[in-house]
Amino acid sequence: MLRVGLLGAGRIGKIHGGNVAAHAGATLVAVADAVPAAAESLAAATGAKVASIDAIIADKAIDAVVICTPTDMHADQIEAAAKAGKAVFCEKPVDLSSDRIRACLAVVKAAGTPLMIGFNRRFDPNFATLQKRLAAGDAGNIEIVTVISRDPGPPPVDYVKRSGGLFRDMMIHDLDMARFLLGEEPVEVHAVGSSLVDPAIGQAGDVDTAAVMLKTASGKIAQISNSRRATYGYDQRIEVHGSKGMLRAGNVHETTVELATAGGFTAAPVQNFFLERYAAAYRAELDAFVTAVNKGTAPNPSGEDGLKAQMLADAATQSAQTGQTVKVG
Amino acid sequence: MLRVGLLGAGRIGKIHGGNVAAHAGATLVAVADAVPAAAESLAAATGAKVASIDAIIADKAIDAVVICTPTDMHADQIEAAAKAGKAVFCEKPVDLSSDRIRACLAVVKAAGTPLMIGFNRRFDPNFATLQKRLAAGDAGNIEIVTVISRDPGPPPVDYVKRSGGLFRDMMIHDLDMARFLLGEEPVEVHAVGSSLVDPAIGQAGDVDTAAVMLKTASGKIAQISNSRRATYGYDQRIEVHGSKGMLRAGNVHETTVELATAGGFTAAPVQNFFLERYAAAYRAELDAFVTAVNKGTAPNPSGEDGLKAQMLADAATQSAQTGQTVKVG
Amino acid sequence: MLRVGLLGAGRIGKIHGGNVAAHAGATLVAVADAVPAAAESLAAATGAKVASIDAIIADKAIDAVVICTPTDMHADQIEAAAKAGKAVFCEKPVDLSSDRIRACLAVVKAAGTPLMIGFNRRFDPNFATLQKRLAAGDAGNIEIVTVISRDPGPPPVDYVKRSGGLFRDMMIHDLDMARFLLGEEPVEVHAVGSSLVDPAIGQAGDVDTAAVMLKTASGKIAQISNSRRATYGYDQRIEVHGSKGMLRAGNVHETTVELATAGGFTAAPVQNFFLERYAAAYRAELDAFVTAVNKGTAPNPSGEDGLKAQMLADAATQSAQTGQTVKVG
Amino acid sequence: MLRVGLLGAGRIGKIHGGNVAAHAGATLVAVADAVPAAAESLAAATGAKVASIDAIIADKAIDAVVICTPTDMHADQIEAAAKAGKAVFCEKPVDLSSDRIRACLAVVKAAGTPLMIGFNRRFDPNFATLQKRLAAGDAGNIEIVTVISRDPGPPPVDYVKRSGGLFRDMMIHDLDMARFLLGEEPVEVHAVGSSLVDPAIGQAGDVDTAAVMLKTASGKIAQISNSRRATYGYDQRIEVHGSKGMLRAGNVHETTVELATAGGFTAAPVQNFFLERYAAAYRAELDAFVTAVNKGTAPNPSGEDGLKAQMLADAATQSAQTGQTVKVG
Repeated sequence: MLRVGLLGAGRIGKIHGGNVAAHAGATLVAVADAVPAAAESLAAATGAKVASIDAIIADKAIDAVVICTPTDMHADQIEAAAKAGKAVFCEKPVDLSSDRIRACLAVVKAAGTPLMIGFNRRFDPNFATLQKRLAAGDAGNIEIVTVISRDPGPPPVDYVKRSGGLFRDMMIHDLDMARFLLGEEPVEVHAVGSSLVDPAIGQAGDVDTAAVMLKTASGKIAQISNSRRATYGYDQRIEVHGSKGMLRAGNVHETTVELATAGGFTAAPVQNFFLERYAAAYRAELDAFVTAVNKGTAPNPSGEDGLKAQMLADAATQSAQTGQTVKVG
Repeated sequence: MLRVGLLGAGRIGKIHGGNVAAHAGATLVAVADAVPAAAESLAAATGAKVASIDAIIADKAIDAVVICTPTDMHADQIEAAAKAGKAVFCEKPVDLSSDRIRACLAVVKAAGTPLMIGFNRRFDPNFATLQKRLAAGDAGNIEIVTVISRDPGPPPVDYVKRSGGLFRDMMIHDLDMARFLLGEEPVEVHAVGSSLVDPAIGQAGDVDTAAVMLKTASGKIAQISNSRRATYGYDQRIEVHGSKGMLRAGNVHETTVELATAGGFTAAPVQNFFLERYAAAYRAELDAFVTAVNKGTAPNPSGEDGLKAQMLADAATQSAQTGQTVKVG
Repeated sequence: MLRVGLLGAGRIGKIHGGNVAAHAGATLVAVADAVPAAAESLAAATGAKVASIDAIIADKAIDAVVICTPTDMHADQIEAAAKAGKAVFCEKPVDLSSDRIRACLAVVKAAGTPLMIGFNRRFDPNFATLQKRLAAGDAGNIEIVTVISRDPGPPPVDYVKRSGGLFRDMMIHDLDMARFLLGEEPVEVHAVGSSLVDPAIGQAGDVDTAAVMLKTASGKIAQISNSRRATYGYDQRIEVHGSKGMLRAGNVHETTVELATAGGFTAAPVQNFFLERYAAAYRAELDAFVTAVNKGTAPNPSGEDGLKAQMLADAATQSAQTGQTVKVG
Repeated sequence: MLRVGLLGAGRIGKIHGGNVAAHAGATLVAVADAVPAAAESLAAATGAKVASIDAIIADKAIDAVVICTPTDMHADQIEAAAKAGKAVFCEKPVDLSSDRIRACLAVVKAAGTPLMIGFNRRFDPNFATLQKRLAAGDAGNIEIVTVISRDPGPPPVDYVKRSGGLFRDMMIHDLDMARFLLGEEPVEVHAVGSSLVDPAIGQAGDVDTAAVMLKTASGKIAQISNSRRATYGYDQRIEVHGSKGMLRAGNVHETTVELATAGGFTAAPVQNFFLERYAAAYRAELDAFVTAVNKGTAPNPSGEDGLKAQMLADAATQSAQTGQTVKVG
């Protein structure tokens, strides 16, 4: 039974905290949040106690921490928890700076403690099934990966300013997905970006519409496109073309209801909210962490996966700004 | 090269006439129609001559006739053509009376000439493929056949009055399709009908909404439903459930274009007009006739198929009127 | 906060018990089961106590019971609980005999306590959305309802013998769905049935493949077909054709993954297990019960709905046996 | 009635020749081909005469020529026909060299004769409908265009060597489609390519797997990917994401037949052969040419469209070779 402390009881913290509490192999022992009411509310709902972050990290009766605090606290908390001998699950990203991530991973490595990074989409039942079938050879040799990812609506500009930019904040999920599917590291990144959705995002120096092309050493190609807007829901699609065929995983619609009239056949919009769309993925992700730590195996995706996705996001950011292809790896 | 005379140059006559003219194994020699302009226009377009029905039947240089005249002329013309030694393709039905059909088939049998009845849907590439796969065992033993067939809009009441009623005029296609798919004769027919679309149809003693249940001797079941109205196009679907799986053939949409907005994902309506929906079926049907006659094999569906579908339509009509199940065969 | 006792902790009892325990407006107080270990296991998982059925019914601190015992105990337990002033949620059916149901409903009526019958499919998000849109007029006037329902595989013959037959055991769900969608009572039932899946079912006097046609007083038509087998999963579809268009709700596939090869485009099978397929429906159903009782409104579907579905199932059974149409209502 | 001469009676020449002959506003007068039997066969089938290319161009009774000869003859023949006052429909491309195209267009401009380039996909009913709806604003402002185009199998290496490379031979269709949909000229091209399908293609200096990213002055983005192989048919999809929604046009499957078994739901492969997939497009394209010339309006797509697509293909070729983004326009 893994005894878990939760750092951060905001929107995503509540999801992970609830999943820990409901897991047969874990107990949610303590919850910390800068907003006392948030910690208290989640603690009450899950039977955990409220504690400070420092107290949780210092508590020898706690085996693992789940970090859902703001991004700029992640690396310090990972290091502190690792030094305290705790297993760590940390929401992506470890940090907005690849250098800081590298330093952090070095500390974790020295501590010899497990670290898992929260790329939830790898655990979506659709995408996970696709990846397993791909790895089993159902599509043959991988040739072209296509990822289309569009948010229902743009975040507030204040959030955008602190986010590290679209490539690090949003596309990092798709860059990780591309790595997950390609099974080989990209060595070249070319990116373009525009501000077509909200001029304020452009004025803040960021883009809201973007595309990336990746190439691996053996010549596999990935194409990704992102928009901060999709009127028809949270658009999340992947497709892999290979020598034997094509594997793809489509969107999840709100219902299976369809209306046919003279105007055509209208199916439901796709699920709109990421917490609904990826509810099963968050459960499976947390289960993967708990199971790995309980079994003593290395959790996956690792800190290294977090670093590599961040390096691709850095490269994409640079490419979009300079118009030049950026080599990585 | 089969030399063909066409009796009737109306809407469906033009289709068959054009298909004869374009067929590599056939020549359209002559066209007859009660409306001279109709015959002349089609003759001009196809390089045929205009002739009277009697002259075509008497013409020893004509090998086969394609009958597209009004229903009440079919049986007489089939008999005359058969006696003249000609192969006959006749639009369904042979007659609205099963007794008249039986008498006509006896004449054809005595003449020993080929007769094919125009159940065009058997030649639709989708439905024909489904039937072939069914016969090949892809779905295992057939258990339940479901046919859904809805016209875009009701015919004029004047037409309804002369039509023999929905079961003989419209559902006869689906009854033939059920026979085609079941591979075994229905022995029981139960039907219900209502007038929900156009009250004038009900006042004329007919129905515009109907359903039928068929059962074969071995217990296979077919369900059919018909409506004289479908706002979203000409709805034509079949589905066969068997011991190994389900085979189905869906509708043909006008285009593959889809629009996704906050209101959902809207695909195009289905093709609205039967001559468009079944254009390929009419070509394949005529080709089957020409090929069979040229090869000296029996064309299919036969006059017997026309009779059996008519007997099912009679039984359905009677069942809907009496509320009783009707035995056939 | 509704204090609930659970009678029966088998497969479906565990689902309802868990949903009660997780409901913000209800507490699972006690669990009873003839198998002590079953009651103890569910009690431990939910924080409830174990008690006997009699004790639960006698317990004045319990407001409501959820009945998940074998069918032949339902009516007695409903009556006892109603007389004890408790609200009752009972799995379908109340009893295999319509007369027994009528007597039971009279007792409940005299007691003036709420009774809800567990027709879970009404609460499936897809079907519930379809019904709401239908009621809102999206498809216009209802003309033809089509329900296709196929189980993944046949139950054991021992179960079949005690089940009341396919029409009462399986099709009752679809008959209730037809009533739910038609918005008008069927007045005529015609049914056919065969044993095509498992000869032992036929030898036991039941059918495993069946179809029904219903007609209402105003002429609306419903067609239902059932099979005890579907190789491709638990097939659950409804379609309503109306004057303005068609509304349908399709199957729920295991994933959205699709593989395209020379053999075609293969999507995942549909969800195979009813507890998975209807997990959300069971939650919503229990919520509807708790909410209605807490608010003092009449829960829905009512005991009367249970009776009417049973009468249709009786009529279908009789029709399939006699070959005659049966009038109801 | 437009009197048309056909230059080249190969695979695509037969299609255009047949469409001219069947067109109510045109007559196929003469057919030329280096292989006499090819010209004779098509002439016999269409009622045209056989003539030499020079004779056709010199024939004052011929109003227009349709050029289906090998690419390296296109520019000379366009110039000769234009100088002879003839309207010209020419299969893409005008030439593999943009400079040669520019020179040719100057000659045509001086002659003042109509010139249309055969980008057939603009006339596909699905894609044409999508573009019309896009232009009508159904998707709002255009933000991201995605084009996926995969051939069923690679061409012979001998063809590849003379083809100008994948970007000029295959992707030029998609580059034209991107221009057609974007409604704005791309100003930046970035391309990557690999040889993953057939090593002999790589040894010949070409690629068989490629992707391109385009950006317009206002920031609209297009992504294209190509493969010379698709096991599941001729894959042709477009998708446009805009401020109000997404418009897409999917593949055309061979039939609507679907088989459901324990392995899932298998739909038919997509149409495999470009002449079948684009049969309707070729007819509509030829009709657009005949109609424009008969009406005296400018045919579309124009020689300028041919030049611009070629310039994008040149830029993509250069980008894939250098790894640098290439500016155009």
